[in-house]
Amino acid sequence: MQAVQPYLDSFLQYMQQNPFDAAPSELYEPVDYILNLGGKRMRPVMLLMAYHLFKDNYEKALPAAYTVEIFHNFSLVHDDIMDAAPLRRGKATVHHKWDVNTGILSGDAMLVWAYEYLLKLDDMSKLPAVIRTFNKAAIEVCEGQQYDINFETRNDVSIEEYLKMIELKTSVLLAGGMRMGAIIADASEEEVEHIYQFGRNVGIAFQLQDDYLDSFGAPEKFGKKVGGDIVQNKKTYLILKALEIADEATKARLLDYMTTPTVEEQPKIKAVKGILQDLHIPELTFELKNQYQATAFKHLDSIDVPEARKQSLINIANALLIREI
Amino acid sequence: MQAVQPYLDSFLQYMQQNPFDAAPSELYEPVDYILNLGGKRMRPVMLLMAYHLFKDNYEKALPAAYTVEIFHNFSLVHDDIMDAAPLRRGKATVHHKWDVNTGILSGDAMLVWAYEYLLKLDDMSKLPAVIRTFNKAAIEVCEGQQYDINFETRNDVSIEEYLKMIELKTSVLLAGGMRMGAIIADASEEEVEHIYQFGRNVGIAFQLQDDYLDSFGAPEKFGKKVGGDIVQNKKTYLILKALEIADEATKARLLDYMTTPTVEEQPKIKAVKGILQDLHIPELTFELKNQYQATAFKHLDSIDVPEARKQSLINIANALLIREI
Repeated sequence: MQAVQPYLDSFLQYMQQNPFDAAPSELYEPVDYILNLGGKRMRPVMLLMAYHLFKDNYEKALPAAYTVEIFHNFSLVHDDIMDAAPLRRGKATVHHKWDVNTGILSGDAMLVWAYEYLLKLDDMSKLPAVIRTFNKAAIEVCEGQQYDINFETRNDVSIEEYLKMIELKTSVLLAGGMRMGAIIADASEEEVEHIYQFGRNVGIAFQLQDDYLDSFGAPEKFGKKVGGDIVQNKKTYLILKALEIADEATKARLLDYMTTPTVEEQPKIKAVKGILQDLHIPELTFELKNQYQATAFKHLDSIDVPEARKQSLINIANALLIREI
Repeated sequence: MQAVQPYLDSFLQYMQQNPFDAAPSELYEPVDYILNLGGKRMRPVMLLMAYHLFKDNYEKALPAAYTVEIFHNFSLVHDDIMDAAPLRRGKATVHHKWDVNTGILSGDAMLVWAYEYLLKLDDMSKLPAVIRTFNKAAIEVCEGQQYDINFETRNDVSIEEYLKMIELKTSVLLAGGMRMGAIIADASEEEVEHIYQFGRNVGIAFQLQDDYLDSFGAPEKFGKKVGGDIVQNKKTYLILKALEIADEATKARLLDYMTTPTVEEQPKIKAVKGILQDLHIPELTFELKNQYQATAFKHLDSIDVPEARKQSLINIANALLIREI
């Protein structure tokens, strides 16, 4: 069972069996809506795979998989309010389809329900460790979102700070979910730590790749508007690295683009991409991404289970992390 | 130990020992701010008293007491955003002092931290039952808030629906907290249920009294602006009961006051209060409040512990629920 599909099918079936269709409908319809907007379901699938590294019946971990998916979608609903984003996965965001108050309250209910599903696990002796892991990730996601907000108005963000922020905001939930899967499967503390570090490093590598693709991806493959980060003057790894290594004149030109309001988006995107390419930022970004990827696989290698059991995680990581620029 | 003070002191000391002073400060300063705005700390104190009914060392329940207080304050932060309220306890609300995004995100972090404190309990074997109880209350508080929002735009709210809403919005957290205290103290299922029903009925009685005081309280004692509910056309028990028993002409007059925009608040307050008094609504409200209060004490009576252990709960309930109108 090396493909993603069985895990995904199993998870989607569990979601269907546990819908949010209770009263009051004004509270739960938005929950049902956001949970069914799609998405890769990467976090729950990889949680199930982490369980499956150690034990066969990965259905046992389905409630925890739902927990991380509900939490992830809760964070999307609230982040979209904070970002005043009208669209999510090509559809109206919750606060746009309903209103901000609905987004706040339905999101709150989702966060509580995320915990409720942890109570549906078979073995309650694991609950403290599972909740401890989940809480850590959940708190770090909030902290990561705060750092992301802070960075918008700061001009002295270091690369180290940026990497910490993307770790908190995007990779700890993947990593924490995988740790939860391993804990539920009775893995040793050492194994649990390795699987966490695998998820953490895959997550950071994935985000660095996402930063790259936002500026240099093929529009038809990327799925989002290419150049969005440049237009919004986001201080991604690409920009921070460029500011670090550029000579003074180039740095000034880049900062000028980032601080001058633009009417024409395309010339700005083209110019900034040109600067980044001249500085070999795409290559440097991929180099760093590859380092995280290699670290991830080193941790997976360190787990002492038959290689065949690792294949699905290797496959999904390779599918998520493309090989070349 | 029959007074409130020892429990309150113990709780306030625990709060001071567990401050929210971590980084990022933009996330945690608002948490520290709202938690230190004051308030009666009724929920944590009564949770400790519920524990103390059954066991001596009520300090063991302090983490759970903090959980309900953090959750309560989280709900205030998010409710104040939804209500666009500028003031809370006479000070600026979080979203007013900072901004809406800060209110959303700091509130989210509080909700997660509420769960984190449950992990600080000594006996992890109780954790599933404690979290199950807390989750039920937390979900019901969200549902109660949604019903409250729904009722603003509905003209057919029944008294039964209203009582259910105030139960969810204001009494289940008190009741759930007391149940948590009893569970942690190893009380039997029957005792746990009695203490829950005590808290639930005290909570509903308290809210009915609050409805009464909002219109008929002495301004210097009530602490809020008297007549606020009337000005805002809130469909409280007083109004719903009046609409139920009034003759057609009086009902029409009352509805007219509630649907006609008013420039002058005082004449409206005076007129609506006159209608309510003519219909003996204050007396009827107190009658219903007294029923809930009597039910509460019946449940406390049913708990088989020495009477002396019940005294602090009897005292605080009597202090919260005044005897006469």
